[in-house]
Amino acid sequence: MCELLAMSANVPTDIVFSFTGLAERGGVTGPHVDGWGITFYEGKGSRTFKDAQPSSQSLVAKLIKSYPIKSEVVISHIRQANRGCVALENTHPFTRELWGRYWTYAHNGQLSDYHAKFNVARHQPVGDTDSELAFCWILEKIVERFGDTPPKNRLDVYRYVATLADEIRQLGVFNMLLSDGEYLMIYCTNNLCHITRRAPFGKAKLIDTDVVIDFNQETTANDIVTVIATRPLTDNERWQILQPGDWQVFCRGEIVLGSDIDN
Amino acid sequence: MCELLAMSANVPTDIVFSFTGLAERGGVTGPHVDGWGITFYEGKGSRTFKDAQPSSQSLVAKLIKSYPIKSEVVISHIRQANRGCVALENTHPFTRELWGRYWTYAHNGQLSDYHAKFNVARHQPVGDTDSELAFCWILEKIVERFGDTPPKNRLDVYRYVATLADEIRQLGVFNMLLSDGEYLMIYCTNNLCHITRRAPFGKAKLIDTDVVIDFNQETTANDIVTVIATRPLTDNERWQILQPGDWQVFCRGEIVLGSDIDN
Repeated sequence: MCELLAMSANVPTDIVFSFTGLAERGGVTGPHVDGWGITFYEGKGSRTFKDAQPSSQSLVAKLIKSYPIKSEVVISHIRQANRGCVALENTHPFTRELWGRYWTYAHNGQLSDYHAKFNVARHQPVGDTDSELAFCWILEKIVERFGDTPPKNRLDVYRYVATLADEIRQLGVFNMLLSDGEYLMIYCTNNLCHITRRAPFGKAKLIDTDVVIDFNQETTANDIVTVIATRPLTDNERWQILQPGDWQVFCRGEIVLGSDIDN
Repeated sequence: MCELLAMSANVPTDIVFSFTGLAERGGVTGPHVDGWGITFYEGKGSRTFKDAQPSSQSLVAKLIKSYPIKSEVVISHIRQANRGCVALENTHPFTRELWGRYWTYAHNGQLSDYHAKFNVARHQPVGDTDSELAFCWILEKIVERFGDTPPKNRLDVYRYVATLADEIRQLGVFNMLLSDGEYLMIYCTNNLCHITRRAPFGKAKLIDTDVVIDFNQETTANDIVTVIATRPLTDNERWQILQPGDWQVFCRGEIVLGSDIDN
């Protein structure tokens, strides 16, 4: 399978600490050696760094681990290929423009018998993964429902995506990250957890490599930073574990919508 | 204005030498300090590195100058802002998916009175440059003309884009690079030139910084590599200078279509 990592924060924050833990799972502490990618939003703009090489060896990953890019939303993925060969076009995250925003998506899991369902025309996959096709289908359905302009309440889109994700989950394992740069949606089939860090900040210790960070030194009292991962990245903090079918939407580090709160 | 750089090659080739020359123009030998970007195609996949910082100082540009990414098509741009502020979302190249391929585009020049012309719905700009809006309009017109599947002869698309570019040129300066990862189209209003290197290879010397390369050491006898730039990057080779309204389409390093050959 693969591993996911994401961040939503109320101030531009770097993800060097968490990405350092994740990248180890791409060949050192984990078997996810078939490429990796990370998307940073900076305002409405976004940039994605990708490599078909293992994250533990990639020169580009080395840059990301040493270069604190400040971002409010981050989506990252390390890949262990199941459907689709090892190639750049099959490397997550995937990005498409819709309604004048970049939508970025990553998927962990595997789907079966999906070709009949995922009819697409306007949004077509470039690679040959089940993941990218599912993303294209989600966009296709969003446009079918809302047209060429977003609804007044953009959260309506995420409510609708949750129903689409419920459908996709019938086809297999579907853990998903999706963002338009402002909101970050997560959807769980089996493995997804998150932690929200805010004052008073403490120290955190990575599981996958010998790194400790003191967030007191890195943050201000008003910072709210949520990190989402397939499995906890630190072993001295309490991560919230999601249940099958759980989904949440974060904005600036806080939950604004979800399966377990009043919609 | 800005500076453009592109490459089309018949074997995966790195662009470290040419990018090293271009990057100098982003703050050292040229005034283009308002961001830069570069897109590499590797098969159908592509990856873009971008920074809103000057290329001569950017850590990401330093990586690109030292990391020989092998690619058959490259598009790059360094920016001196005229329309649109300095921000990641205004940094070229821009990429959109169409027909299961990533289309990448960069523009040098400036347009006026363009809002009335560039009506878009399906493809919307994320930033606020004239350049990105023109790209969205081109895609909009392509879909209007050809629908959700490409024509049998994909070169028909580029013939059509040439007529659109002729229209856009009425609004100002429009030097353009456009690629779907296989073909690379260039369109000239005032500043664009190219060189095709093939056996017997010789040495080349950059204008902007003290670097010499001996392509004999870097290539095989069958390599064909075309480099396109706003202004020549080397001073000991003969660059072909394009005239206003000239356009060409390259594939694997060779011209396959153009304003000056039989269409």
